[in-house]
Amino acid sequence: MMKIVITGVSGFVGDYLIKHILTEEPDVQILGLDAVAPRWKYGAAVACRQVDLLDRDRTEGLLRDIKPDCIIHLASFSSVADSWKDPIRSFKNNTNIFLNLLEIVHALQLQCRILSIGSSEEYGIVKDGDLPLRESMSLNPVSPYAVARVAQEQLSAIYAKGFSMDIVCTRSFNHIGPGQPDKFVVSSIGKQFAEIKRGLRETLYIGSTGIIRDFLDVRDVVRAYYLLVKKGARGEVYNICSGRGISIGELIDMFSETSGISPAAEVRAELQRPVENPKIIGSYEKINAHVGWQPEITLRESIKDIYEYWLSATAATGEQQK
Amino acid sequence: MMKIVITGVSGFVGDYLIKHILTEEPDVQILGLDAVAPRWKYGAAVACRQVDLLDRDRTEGLLRDIKPDCIIHLASFSSVADSWKDPIRSFKNNTNIFLNLLEIVHALQLQCRILSIGSSEEYGIVKDGDLPLRESMSLNPVSPYAVARVAQEQLSAIYAKGFSMDIVCTRSFNHIGPGQPDKFVVSSIGKQFAEIKRGLRETLYIGSTGIIRDFLDVRDVVRAYYLLVKKGARGEVYNICSGRGISIGELIDMFSETSGISPAAEVRAELQRPVENPKIIGSYEKINAHVGWQPEITLRESIKDIYEYWLSATAATGEQQK
Repeated sequence: MMKIVITGVSGFVGDYLIKHILTEEPDVQILGLDAVAPRWKYGAAVACRQVDLLDRDRTEGLLRDIKPDCIIHLASFSSVADSWKDPIRSFKNNTNIFLNLLEIVHALQLQCRILSIGSSEEYGIVKDGDLPLRESMSLNPVSPYAVARVAQEQLSAIYAKGFSMDIVCTRSFNHIGPGQPDKFVVSSIGKQFAEIKRGLRETLYIGSTGIIRDFLDVRDVVRAYYLLVKKGARGEVYNICSGRGISIGELIDMFSETSGISPAAEVRAELQRPVENPKIIGSYEKINAHVGWQPEITLRESIKDIYEYWLSATAATGEQQK
Repeated sequence: MMKIVITGVSGFVGDYLIKHILTEEPDVQILGLDAVAPRWKYGAAVACRQVDLLDRDRTEGLLRDIKPDCIIHLASFSSVADSWKDPIRSFKNNTNIFLNLLEIVHALQLQCRILSIGSSEEYGIVKDGDLPLRESMSLNPVSPYAVARVAQEQLSAIYAKGFSMDIVCTRSFNHIGPGQPDKFVVSSIGKQFAEIKRGLRETLYIGSTGIIRDFLDVRDVVRAYYLLVKKGARGEVYNICSGRGISIGELIDMFSETSGISPAAEVRAELQRPVENPKIIGSYEKINAHVGWQPEITLRESIKDIYEYWLSATAATGEQQK
């Protein structure tokens, strides 16, 4: 039986990941860890514990008990925008928690693979000619969040080399999907479209419409994570991305098509960041070559599902407000 | 009157820096901060406070009171070897304390220059053809200490750009000089030579003799720091180095010449590191062009002063042991 620890399990990605693993690996034991209480119940194969990963003793005790075959480290303070508002918290809940985890695995001499989730933000701002981003490119972080992620990846490399630990790293590009918190841009736009459709608001508030990102459905993301756990090459770093760049303006157009409404939009300064990366597009050639992964869900499908998720969620809110 | 805050003031470099500033800038007020009590007294121009830089409230209060024109951030957990033994402590006392300091200066809106001390270790292992190391080269840290320093420098760049803060960064190469703790290699060798000379031991314990480093006298280092505070270009990064590479074997030969003894040497595994950078040599062309700095103290002078320092120190020990 495979024993898997998932940190940050109560987050947006955790729920999708658990469901995917339970489908792919029926004989599995999962221990989910998170600073907040679990949001769902999954049956006997999944146990969840509330723990602060900065609490080394408690985390060490939990890992000593389960002796996992693998740790999928989703836990993160993952908002770039919030990292500008609270860089200290962002740093602690990205780099420091990960370093704690490495130290625990090293101290316990656990023979387990660690999947370290990183971010496309690590690349920073590059020239158009250097797109799509490839894993061999240098890292030039331009936000507190990105610095914390670069440090995490560099620590992975050092523990892999210095202590012969089995670590695989990702640079995951922007995730989207139903259930994502609305502080992330696509979810925020989807929620606002649903609210406008329901007559709960009139205007769409946005940050920059021109910035271009490589958005990937969370269901494709968790499939990549599981493949990397099973077949990724030790010590390697993998982009997980769609390979296509979409501007926020184009996304808004797609939500308009899906919802059948075209609301007025207002650019709000508070939704902009001190330094904005204009364009992030990745290449998934490496992960495709190593483990055969490629994205399967189209952006149009993702947008439709996100919009419908928010329509349901705002229906409930609408009811309450009546 | 210029008001200067020096963090990590009780360390090896702090004492030299204070003396240099008091000579160069008679009308100055210095506030020294350190986690440990000050080791010396300097007169009315210098006040020292014991404070943990992770204690944000207390540190913020001290900076609010003095409103410095500049902060020279020497505080660091600066041993590469110790960073392999206690990576968490190394990370907290490099990156986290620096991020706290940035956040405090930002929150208080202090109009002050920050001199952020970094390390040659940030460069990592490079091909011989890429030596000497220049500031434009990419960073590839190979120890926990080096990762922490890279994160510190990247955070500097982000606060400089995102919040228009006045930050100058160094990549300081290996310092040497009288009074340096003996956990650093040159000081350790100097101390052992003095002990052997005094008949307190017979054999010299060393790590790797082949590794090559760029050693610079601490008195040249503090002169560079002060010049960068006064004349360095905002947002820039500067190597501070001698420009020449010396192997540990050559250093031992120089101590032999200086002391007139040639002890047996024994390579000890515990003095080696999981990943060792074979060769670090820097270029000081940029700092020379920008502020006119160049090293003035020869390696032979440094070695002589270090040996004589340890001869005095071990004399005292020898007396006690009698």
